[in-house]
Amino acid sequence: MLRRLWELSEFPFHPEKLNHYETLFTVGNGYMAMRGTFEEGYPGEIATTLVHGIYNHAAGALVTDLVNAPNPLPLRLWIDGTPFRLVNQHHTALQPPDGAVLGYRRRLQLDHGVLIREVLFRAASGSIVRVVFERFASLHDVHLLVQRVRITAVDGEPEIRVESRLDTDVTNGEVRHWGNIQAEADGATLAVQARTNQSGYVLGMASRLISPYPAEARVEGESPLVSSTFRLRQEEAVSLDKLTVVYTNRDVEADRVLDTARRHLQASVAAGCEQLRSAHENEWARYWDTSDVQIEGDDYAQFAVRFLMYHLLIAAPRQDERVSIGAKTLSGLGYKGHVFWDTELFIVPPLILTQPQIARNLLMYRYHNLPGARNKARANGYEGAMYPWESTDTGEETTPQWSDEQEDGSRIRIWTGDTEQHISTDIAYAVLQYWRWTGDDDFMRRYGAEIVLDTAVFWGSRVEARSGRYEISQQIGPDEYHENIDNSVFTNRMVVWHLEQALQLLDWLRSSAPDDAARLTAVLNLTPARLDRWRDIIQKMYIPFDDERQIHIQFPGFFDMEYIPVQHYQPRAVSVQAILGHKRSIQSQVIKQADVVMLMALLGDELAPQPVLLNNWNTYYPRTDHGSSLSPAVHAWVAARLGLDEAAYEMFEHAAGIDLENNKGNVRDGIHGAASGGLWQALIFGFCGLHLDERGEPALDPRLPAHWKRVSFTVYYRGEKRRLAVTNPVMVTPMA
Amino acid sequence: MLRRLWELSEFPFHPEKLNHYETLFTVGNGYMAMRGTFEEGYPGEIATTLVHGIYNHAAGALVTDLVNAPNPLPLRLWIDGTPFRLVNQHHTALQPPDGAVLGYRRRLQLDHGVLIREVLFRAASGSIVRVVFERFASLHDVHLLVQRVRITAVDGEPEIRVESRLDTDVTNGEVRHWGNIQAEADGATLAVQARTNQSGYVLGMASRLISPYPAEARVEGESPLVSSTFRLRQEEAVSLDKLTVVYTNRDVEADRVLDTARRHLQASVAAGCEQLRSAHENEWARYWDTSDVQIEGDDYAQFAVRFLMYHLLIAAPRQDERVSIGAKTLSGLGYKGHVFWDTELFIVPPLILTQPQIARNLLMYRYHNLPGARNKARANGYEGAMYPWESTDTGEETTPQWSDEQEDGSRIRIWTGDTEQHISTDIAYAVLQYWRWTGDDDFMRRYGAEIVLDTAVFWGSRVEARSGRYEISQQIGPDEYHENIDNSVFTNRMVVWHLEQALQLLDWLRSSAPDDAARLTAVLNLTPARLDRWRDIIQKMYIPFDDERQIHIQFPGFFDMEYIPVQHYQPRAVSVQAILGHKRSIQSQVIKQADVVMLMALLGDELAPQPVLLNNWNTYYPRTDHGSSLSPAVHAWVAARLGLDEAAYEMFEHAAGIDLENNKGNVRDGIHGAASGGLWQALIFGFCGLHLDERGEPALDPRLPAHWKRVSFTVYYRGEKRRLAVTNPVMVTPMA
Repeated sequence: MLRRLWELSEFPFHPEKLNHYETLFTVGNGYMAMRGTFEEGYPGEIATTLVHGIYNHAAGALVTDLVNAPNPLPLRLWIDGTPFRLVNQHHTALQPPDGAVLGYRRRLQLDHGVLIREVLFRAASGSIVRVVFERFASLHDVHLLVQRVRITAVDGEPEIRVESRLDTDVTNGEVRHWGNIQAEADGATLAVQARTNQSGYVLGMASRLISPYPAEARVEGESPLVSSTFRLRQEEAVSLDKLTVVYTNRDVEADRVLDTARRHLQASVAAGCEQLRSAHENEWARYWDTSDVQIEGDDYAQFAVRFLMYHLLIAAPRQDERVSIGAKTLSGLGYKGHVFWDTELFIVPPLILTQPQIARNLLMYRYHNLPGARNKARANGYEGAMYPWESTDTGEETTPQWSDEQEDGSRIRIWTGDTEQHISTDIAYAVLQYWRWTGDDDFMRRYGAEIVLDTAVFWGSRVEARSGRYEISQQIGPDEYHENIDNSVFTNRMVVWHLEQALQLLDWLRSSAPDDAARLTAVLNLTPARLDRWRDIIQKMYIPFDDERQIHIQFPGFFDMEYIPVQHYQPRAVSVQAILGHKRSIQSQVIKQADVVMLMALLGDELAPQPVLLNNWNTYYPRTDHGSSLSPAVHAWVAARLGLDEAAYEMFEHAAGIDLENNKGNVRDGIHGAASGGLWQALIFGFCGLHLDERGEPALDPRLPAHWKRVSFTVYYRGEKRRLAVTNPVMVTPMA
Repeated sequence: MLRRLWELSEFPFHPEKLNHYETLFTVGNGYMAMRGTFEEGYPGEIATTLVHGIYNHAAGALVTDLVNAPNPLPLRLWIDGTPFRLVNQHHTALQPPDGAVLGYRRRLQLDHGVLIREVLFRAASGSIVRVVFERFASLHDVHLLVQRVRITAVDGEPEIRVESRLDTDVTNGEVRHWGNIQAEADGATLAVQARTNQSGYVLGMASRLISPYPAEARVEGESPLVSSTFRLRQEEAVSLDKLTVVYTNRDVEADRVLDTARRHLQASVAAGCEQLRSAHENEWARYWDTSDVQIEGDDYAQFAVRFLMYHLLIAAPRQDERVSIGAKTLSGLGYKGHVFWDTELFIVPPLILTQPQIARNLLMYRYHNLPGARNKARANGYEGAMYPWESTDTGEETTPQWSDEQEDGSRIRIWTGDTEQHISTDIAYAVLQYWRWTGDDDFMRRYGAEIVLDTAVFWGSRVEARSGRYEISQQIGPDEYHENIDNSVFTNRMVVWHLEQALQLLDWLRSSAPDDAARLTAVLNLTPARLDRWRDIIQKMYIPFDDERQIHIQFPGFFDMEYIPVQHYQPRAVSVQAILGHKRSIQSQVIKQADVVMLMALLGDELAPQPVLLNNWNTYYPRTDHGSSLSPAVHAWVAARLGLDEAAYEMFEHAAGIDLENNKGNVRDGIHGAASGGLWQALIFGFCGLHLDERGEPALDPRLPAHWKRVSFTVYYRGEKRRLAVTNPVMVTPMA
């Protein structure tokens, strides 16, 4: 096994990429995650620990945040009194006054979910130590964070001081979420408990520094810390472990949180670090067994697909069906931990096929939040369930109405919470896709059907009958540069599809689960009149189409706006919108991500015959600036299906570079979860052509990039694990 | 063809890697080379143009420099009066006062030898232009540098000013080499001529800016420049070409230099840029036809081997047998353009096998410099030819005796010019290797034999008879941490080999070319007594060996010094010597690059039976800090031959990262030519096991890294081109 294809590595230290790499080097386990900040801290860092589901809307803040938890990572060292820091290198001076980093390497082992940092450090005294930090958020025991520091006296006989801390002085940007902070230090055990100041979540952490030397603990401010001092002989090495256990009142009752954390910690200490680690690694091995995709002939693509899957897996709640994955996963504060359509159309599909239980949890999150969606529909004067554009723990709409302040002090009105309504259909799409691949009829009867049908009820009440046809006004499609337009082809067409699916689903339900059908008919008031209206909408919905050019029209009037040759704006590290300004670009044909191309991805040949699809591509691709990170992967996928190999690979590389190369410049805010899931879909649905055929059976229709030799992967189909492979030239291994 | 495997690319701009990337993005053609600095200049840049053979020892300087020529690259632009510069990005302000770079990408096409930079730039006026710079040093016409700038008015109707300049205000660091500067501007043609102030080389440049718009030329200070101003309509594009021709009095007589450059320029302008470019690209295609190595299953290795070969080829004099390749090629000022053993033992072998004519030129450089080597021998009281450790145009020893000032103001005595004497044998080794692979008997009879034999004469006079055996005192082996030691096993053993070869060569000469044998016997005074002494030395040379441990001893007393566990000093971006200081490390067993492992590379099984070779490895590998960039590749090669697959690949990666990842931190000074050639040898001699078998025929004995699928390459053997391939699992294609 070539480690390079399983390891993200940094050598030497790249301070200019500090925040970018903090995101990439995140560790997590689907319950919580910690950005790859350093144990000793670094100026300008964005130290962040996120625990699924812990949201808070602080007084004075515009919106609800996924809350930055107390920081469990701090482990500071002093070598002969010199603080261990990633200071600048002093190349020649043998005893620099503030110590010197002589070497640095960091590796994130994707296969094991372990982050390792090795540093060779010289103290002002001249003593040289090799320090190796390791950390993992246990995948086997999701409440547990394990850290180790191993110190070797390479030269000299240094006195070492190690200090471990739980840092409660944490914020989200400038917003402070925690109150009622208790901090305790008792022997080598530290404990903190805190309460979010609006939502009232209680979080407790208990931590132990396991040192072979005596340790002293105390509380400083509101943070407990413990330190241990000892001397090493030349070439002697010592390892200290730090175990930290995290609980919240989402796990146990509020008054038992800290006590539970303490007991759990005790049991973990008793089990011993070796056992904890092997349990963790075994769990990762099980994960990869179904989630790895092997690409021969393209190491960059190979690494990129492992990297994306790692990041989806560490954010994916395996044991919790009341949380979902935010747009930036658990790896950064961008989009404040809110859940968008990114989850259902981009992140859920790879999980449906490789970790269906997790996909089910994510869909259950939407089921549990039906009340919020119904509230939103009612508040807007509609029926049924209208999902919020941005969702948190309450299921209510949490999209801010106004942006943060711009350079000139103004704020921009954000309309997506009002009018980007396609999310209700996107969720229905994911439910149906999950059902088709898993055959999980039980889920569909008990939960999924209610989502699909009640969102259909919403659309039935939402569409507008106008001069003999149905229209939908004031929408935002995936192309968010064009707001509040009438008759978005994406939305109108997907609503037709949605209502068709709802009717078929109801038929299936009536024949296979009449009790559930009856229950839902009653609860959702699925009267014959309502169903007739759905059929009428399907027939008479206005789908903007240009008969002469044989293309779909993104929305009526689109082509009347200024044409800007997007292809000239190359190379660029920012969107064309950022270059031309908001005002001008919204009045132009520049597209953030193509609505029509997205339709082609979701509906494929069902949308139109091949020549129309090609016309669509040729029309919209040159107008799209990929200002959304969701865009390139969808284009790669669709281009592969159209046989446009060069564009497909170019877009695939673009998508892969979004996080790895920071080619949109904003990775500091977190992993682009949708771009990650999109990349997987471009690979599996686009290049490999995996689909369900007419009989509902999985089939492959590969269109691999010319230099790829082979792709092999595993998918679940109706509970069975299937190993698939395609080669170049095309040879599909039989489905077994 | 996957462009990524043929292109070095930078996106976006990495100012923190400015000098590192200047080195990597060098273009050249074996006559001259230009570092990858920018047309408009950048603060902190090391703009360097080097022309083979133009050395100068300026008054007051410690040593001779390969001279930084006048800079032909400057091409500055103003867009609506805003100077085009790689300033910081202004993300949001639509009209930043000093312009803004909206996007940047740079690509060095290794297959075509063309450097391309694309920039999207906004002027203070709001106009946006896309600017594409291209440059190549023609491989077809080595006096010619071709540049192009293409400007597209993406938005707005900007006024453009383009200024082309030949910059004569150039130095090597702080040393000024040029005098008698003439600068002329005539119509659109610029010309400069200058003379090195000690050596008296004359260099002339003539340059033309080909613009569809009127141009004005003038001389500013001692630099001529021409500018052209015009306005573009929206979406209009214009291309301007700059052709520059370079001649020196190494090409034509001094008084004809500038006139020749001017005429040549005229002919090039008449030929037209398209024709110039296709001739250049065709020449590169011919180059790659024999120089490409294809590696399947490891994209990193694939790119690395193309990258190294590109850099060897652009520094390799194809049409000149009186120059050689310096330690930093033509890509930087490190080691001042001096020629070391790096050339013969590291750089020459890949050229012998893929571009034998160039290898011959490099060896002819040593032949022409025999007088210098004889001077050095005489000056030191020896006979024969004693090659200088550092060589320039004169063939005399040019190693400085003292280092530059250290931090504390002291200078360190440099002994290599006095006592690193193995270079004479290294040159003989290269001559013999060339002969064996090419069968170029004519070269051997007329030139090569004289090198091999006269350096043997040197050794015959150099060795010291002492108590019944021969010894050599006061030597520096490849491991330069240990200076002036007695009985270096590397030197002593290679001298034995050298004398054996010399005797065999003389036998061959006497039987196959008696006239040449007689001539050389007379000229070099190869008396029977002298040859008997050689035989006696071969018998009685002291080869330090530990019978008990069954290992070679680097030199007697080596194991009495302090043992330092080098493996603890990880990770590090500097050598262990730099960490521990010069004083302590020279009194320790820390090795810069293993003498014994180098012996194993050069002599293979001839050195000792396998168990001894393995013992040697196990002894010296853990003591080696690879403080020399030459070390990792040699270790990769030897480890592969010993079947130590893991160490072999680790060392191969280490060697590949020296330039690409700057893992020794000094790429700003130029490409590590020897590490490059060493990497090729690790690949071809190490992993593929290419060698000449007992019958003198090429044979393969592959030991590929486990994840490699296939390696294919071309070698010349006795004038015939042979395409070879090895696969994993092992399958060797028949030699055809």
